[in-house]
Amino acid sequence: MSKEITSRAEDYSQWYNDLVLKGGLADYSAVRGCMVIKPYGYALWENMQAALDKMFKDTGHENAYFPLFIPKSFLSKEAAHVEGFAKECAVVTHYRLKNDPNGGGIVVDPEAKLEEELIVRPTSETIIWNTYKDWVKSYRDLPLLINQWANVVRWEMRTRLFLRTAEFLWQEGHTAHATAEEAIAETKQMLEVYTTFAEEFMALPVIRGIKTESERFAGAEDTYCIEALMQDGKALQAGTSHFLGQNFAKAFDVKFLNKENQLNYVWATSWGVSTRLIGALVMAHSDDQGLVMPPKIAPLQVVIVPIYGKDEESKKLIDSKAKEIMDNLKRIGVRVKYDNNDNNRPGWKFAEYEMKGVPVRVAIGARDLEKNVVEIARRDTKEKKAVGLDGIAQYIDGLLVDIQNSLYNKAKDYRDSHITRADDWTEFEKLLDDKGGFIAAHWDGTAETEASIKEKTKATIRCIPLDNKLEEGKCILTGNPSKQRVLFARAY
Amino acid sequence: MSKEITSRAEDYSQWYNDLVLKGGLADYSAVRGCMVIKPYGYALWENMQAALDKMFKDTGHENAYFPLFIPKSFLSKEAAHVEGFAKECAVVTHYRLKNDPNGGGIVVDPEAKLEEELIVRPTSETIIWNTYKDWVKSYRDLPLLINQWANVVRWEMRTRLFLRTAEFLWQEGHTAHATAEEAIAETKQMLEVYTTFAEEFMALPVIRGIKTESERFAGAEDTYCIEALMQDGKALQAGTSHFLGQNFAKAFDVKFLNKENQLNYVWATSWGVSTRLIGALVMAHSDDQGLVMPPKIAPLQVVIVPIYGKDEESKKLIDSKAKEIMDNLKRIGVRVKYDNNDNNRPGWKFAEYEMKGVPVRVAIGARDLEKNVVEIARRDTKEKKAVGLDGIAQYIDGLLVDIQNSLYNKAKDYRDSHITRADDWTEFEKLLDDKGGFIAAHWDGTAETEASIKEKTKATIRCIPLDNKLEEGKCILTGNPSKQRVLFARAY
Repeated sequence: MSKEITSRAEDYSQWYNDLVLKGGLADYSAVRGCMVIKPYGYALWENMQAALDKMFKDTGHENAYFPLFIPKSFLSKEAAHVEGFAKECAVVTHYRLKNDPNGGGIVVDPEAKLEEELIVRPTSETIIWNTYKDWVKSYRDLPLLINQWANVVRWEMRTRLFLRTAEFLWQEGHTAHATAEEAIAETKQMLEVYTTFAEEFMALPVIRGIKTESERFAGAEDTYCIEALMQDGKALQAGTSHFLGQNFAKAFDVKFLNKENQLNYVWATSWGVSTRLIGALVMAHSDDQGLVMPPKIAPLQVVIVPIYGKDEESKKLIDSKAKEIMDNLKRIGVRVKYDNNDNNRPGWKFAEYEMKGVPVRVAIGARDLEKNVVEIARRDTKEKKAVGLDGIAQYIDGLLVDIQNSLYNKAKDYRDSHITRADDWTEFEKLLDDKGGFIAAHWDGTAETEASIKEKTKATIRCIPLDNKLEEGKCILTGNPSKQRVLFARAY
Repeated sequence: MSKEITSRAEDYSQWYNDLVLKGGLADYSAVRGCMVIKPYGYALWENMQAALDKMFKDTGHENAYFPLFIPKSFLSKEAAHVEGFAKECAVVTHYRLKNDPNGGGIVVDPEAKLEEELIVRPTSETIIWNTYKDWVKSYRDLPLLINQWANVVRWEMRTRLFLRTAEFLWQEGHTAHATAEEAIAETKQMLEVYTTFAEEFMALPVIRGIKTESERFAGAEDTYCIEALMQDGKALQAGTSHFLGQNFAKAFDVKFLNKENQLNYVWATSWGVSTRLIGALVMAHSDDQGLVMPPKIAPLQVVIVPIYGKDEESKKLIDSKAKEIMDNLKRIGVRVKYDNNDNNRPGWKFAEYEMKGVPVRVAIGARDLEKNVVEIARRDTKEKKAVGLDGIAQYIDGLLVDIQNSLYNKAKDYRDSHITRADDWTEFEKLLDDKGGFIAAHWDGTAETEASIKEKTKATIRCIPLDNKLEEGKCILTGNPSKQRVLFARAY
């Protein structure tokens, strides 16, 4: 093996860090809580962005770009929002440095103090709705369907690569509508887009649901979410879509003349997913040998490794055959690399691409070629197989589809077998400790009970699933009457 | 006309602002010096990004992402760099807000003061080279060919939409090499990439050259640039590519073991273009009726406008024919929209798309269809022509190529006729005031003379063109001996 990875069984958390660092996805930086997204990680993000961006545009959205900075006073305009976001954030107070007159290098120029501090955006509702005020006058200007790809900053105290960093990359959609119904439909539509993306591209099965009031986005009327399950039995919120009602329209005075010439406040949504999804991807599919990338978004889908002998003639033959396979794969749109770098031996390369989770490895040796075959290894199951050269590109293309489906099914089987009902408190606690996963249990609907359960067990209500079955029951903690089960889990 | 535009003759500067605002490219924001890039402007940027990104990847570069923040001390590590960039910048001093105990809303929490201030990146050499220190150990790790798409902040006092804003979007390439020769070759290669992009995609002819020492990037050994000419005779620096020598490697102690097992400092380049290019695009091609978009990067290349009569039957026929044309255009990759919005009349639409600079407009009326023709108008020359429906998609496709070439040739003719030689000071000043453009004049090679000319005339040395002809002469200001002419201009 080229690099040591801690096993999941030994230390799950270290296993995760090893994968992110040694798999070349990201690195720590000199700035507290901020990470460097390395080329391999960024290529993954680009593939994720491309798939999402296409879906956003197919549903009528356009991209735009709003300022990085938010005047401090804007945050205060929406009462719930300020509580949620105006706490841990990066505050710009000055706009100039100068040479220290006492020779201490460069220092902040006290004369360059801003009249009003600027906050590095933790999310952009306020600056965007302040702009929409100028853009929306009449029903003809609606709906406004805008998305932004951007960096945001939340000053987290405890950070983890991808999962929780001070700065992260994301997209945030912000839409404006003439009616509540239309805004709610948009909120749900984007939840569907996220579901499709998670399941079809990331091979990540998700549960769609709605958050309880305590877990709602600060300033939202309703927060819809998709929740995924990691291999350690912890849940991870993979995307949210908020129905904001008229809260931001009222805070920023955004009104429009409707067809009947009446002045009304505009209805809003916002929705986002972030580089956090990369953390989810790592934890959902990878194993003790390294990352496992779903083919649809894998930076590299196929790697071809030559197994040279000493014979120069057979080396040429291997190179020419490999290039032929590569060209055929490229022609059908497969992302493929021929790694004939002489500095590393085949065994090193095998381990390296296994670490990086490249879905399919093709090994070509002289003896294989004599038999007109190559060795194909799939990363997910580690199965190896000699495959004939005729129609090899089509075979690999089919294999990539198969791997994508297998990853999804495996994750779904795990997830489905980790949704457990609990009907009394002892069972509930035991399940959390021993099995993990989602626990479907009755809850009396109060924020107090929710907080109390969280305090006792660190489990939160991940969501009330959409189309949840109603049934009479008793709250798992208080025994008070309940009308439905909700999904609890410990979460990232 | 739907919206009034100030003419170039009346007020060039206002004409520019009108185009940016009324053409829907950008808007002012509530944050001083920051702009909002509106969907139409952002779609243009996306097309520019896509073309550049492909060229970067085709030349072996990968994208990555580095932190938004730079510790203050990093800026001081490279002596020239700190002089150039550590002046007007956004400084983060605190990481928390809190409720004012005196009831004054939210205030900065004085207890959450950072030990070391963070600077919002004005450019990323320092944070990136601090990272490269960990990535580069041996010649095997080189070259490192990395690009970043990002936002940066420079606290400009006087701002103009796109041309000079506090926050702007850009790409910055940062590469590391084993030898000076290789780094210089990279610097020149990226200048060629920028030249190709400017000329072939933006239809913007540029002069490639090298900056004088005074105009060099802070921290560079040499700054290569492409310079374009705007319609008011002022120059605009459209892209720069810097050979950084070993300055940043020494500042951040980045060494590598070469093949001979010796420890050496790494050689560096950096290169960037920004949303400023959108300002250049606007000023290079537009006219008094609005924007003129080069087809290759136009957000919308073709708009089809129906001219309905009262007859319902002919309306259906127009719709069906328009959709047929649209489908055919889409099939060959043309970005096309059918605007059959009933709220606006054809005349309003004509003015609107003229304003937005859509290269080709197709108008379809009932009487046209009887004759089996449509009316095609090209935005650049405003020529209108009845064109037969057979093979109309191919005709339009060819027309887009023609428009792209025409725009380039027109801009090039203007530019070429605005490179003027001056051999005495009176002529030099007169040319600057009356004709503008580039003035090729002798300069004695000293920074003092350069500064003096700038002070007297506001003209700067835009560049010493690559492969400049050497000739003996006398400095335009001092009369001292000079070996070559350099290009002066007033500039954005």
